[in-house]
Amino acid sequence: MTDPPTTPGPFASATSVTAAGEGVYGAAVRPGWDIAGNANGGYLLTIGARALLDATGRADPVSVTGHYLSPGRPGPIDIATRVLKQGRRFSDGFALMEAAGKPLLSVLGTFGELVDRPEEFLVDGSPPELPPPDACVPMDPSHGSPPFMGKVELRLHPDDAGFATGVTSGVPRVTGWFRLPDQEPVDTVALLCAADAFPPTIFNADIPLAWTPTVEFTVHVRARPEPGWLRCRFTTRFITGGFIEVDGEIWDARSRLVAQSRQLALVPLA
Amino acid sequence: MTDPPTTPGPFASATSVTAAGEGVYGAAVRPGWDIAGNANGGYLLTIGARALLDATGRADPVSVTGHYLSPGRPGPIDIATRVLKQGRRFSDGFALMEAAGKPLLSVLGTFGELVDRPEEFLVDGSPPELPPPDACVPMDPSHGSPPFMGKVELRLHPDDAGFATGVTSGVPRVTGWFRLPDQEPVDTVALLCAADAFPPTIFNADIPLAWTPTVEFTVHVRARPEPGWLRCRFTTRFITGGFIEVDGEIWDARSRLVAQSRQLALVPLA
Repeated sequence: MTDPPTTPGPFASATSVTAAGEGVYGAAVRPGWDIAGNANGGYLLTIGARALLDATGRADPVSVTGHYLSPGRPGPIDIATRVLKQGRRFSDGFALMEAAGKPLLSVLGTFGELVDRPEEFLVDGSPPELPPPDACVPMDPSHGSPPFMGKVELRLHPDDAGFATGVTSGVPRVTGWFRLPDQEPVDTVALLCAADAFPPTIFNADIPLAWTPTVEFTVHVRARPEPGWLRCRFTTRFITGGFIEVDGEIWDARSRLVAQSRQLALVPLA
Repeated sequence: MTDPPTTPGPFASATSVTAAGEGVYGAAVRPGWDIAGNANGGYLLTIGARALLDATGRADPVSVTGHYLSPGRPGPIDIATRVLKQGRRFSDGFALMEAAGKPLLSVLGTFGELVDRPEEFLVDGSPPELPPPDACVPMDPSHGSPPFMGKVELRLHPDDAGFATGVTSGVPRVTGWFRLPDQEPVDTVALLCAADAFPPTIFNADIPLAWTPTVEFTVHVRARPEPGWLRCRFTTRFITGGFIEVDGEIWDARSRLVAQSRQLALVPLA
């Protein structure tokens, strides 16, 4: 399930899992997928989802939730999966990922096969309006972006990219283009990574808050994306009670909503 | 943890759990908490959360996700919990609820103590504007509402209640007041029930769709609610790919956002 028949691309390789029997999988946090030394949360969630896709024998994540238990550092990880239900259309599973015997990430998910269903009964929204990718702002590790940004290709809307030079928009929003390098296709599993790949919305808010560790992250996948750049929008409405939520939408080249996401993170004071 | 020192109210009793050792809990789906014979999803999630609160020794749910594996019928249930992490501020746990040996609901959650944090850095929203409860529309089982509606007290905004008489608003939105009968306080655990207590948004949409079984349901609790009626808003933006999401907000008597929720459900054609 986890390895396509042709040579896997860099993202597929860096998120691959190896079955070790009895629902256990081996994997690794690869170097270079980090932000300030900690592996990107969407990258880690993708690894857990691959183990559960293999364990359930399904092709696509439908709804995947991760709870982050400790920071991810490069090195081997063990994934213990448990299939909770094998249904006709969907399967459910739970995975606990551990690194050096310490809990890293727990994953609860529903998996299935996302067949094309063209009926759109309600679409109250639209992809973000973005200048062409070449007119947007790349996130480039050689110019100060975290190493993770060298593993994916982001192009931010210029209005949302000012934080990098200290000119915040004042609006807790980030929009932009996403794809994988080397023309590696973005499948439904890679959407889990895309949904956590952008800089935090809080970077654009004029609020004295620091680094925001993720507590919980859920992605709903609606459809298999068409090949090509994805348009993404991340917004925040409430920073209260010591928490912030980030809501994401991912739209494909056919202007279909292919995924929705929400995460809850802590907001320590700066 | 699960039984307050005074006599528990009807909701607390109907969602109580009994520790049986080694992380296992006994509980029951009580009669009368159903909609067309199936127990309400928020009610079931509350039972699972109570087991995990006891297992982790925490007071409040922070983020709780449930995946619905089979319909809940009245009768005993077994809950196997596993504490995944005991941290300083938060604990994480997983629970599998089974009825008659069949998986019913899986729950993944983060728990802690929600101390009052008055700083509100960003509030991009407000409680729904509602007529006073007495000027709103009660959901009354003696007038055709499901039995569950006799266990909670709902008062719908008249603009959102027309579906009951066949006059839909055309807007996939439901707003209204929520409380528990007999002045039983709504604590942070009862918020999990409140977030799934209202009629489906789809009842107000002019779309030929039937009953929507829930796949996944997540509630983020931001604060302990003040005593009194809660104001709730449920909206839907996308009915595509065979799925519908329902986003919820719950505001307390002090006009603070106390919970956000999202669920993903299937949309079988009518």
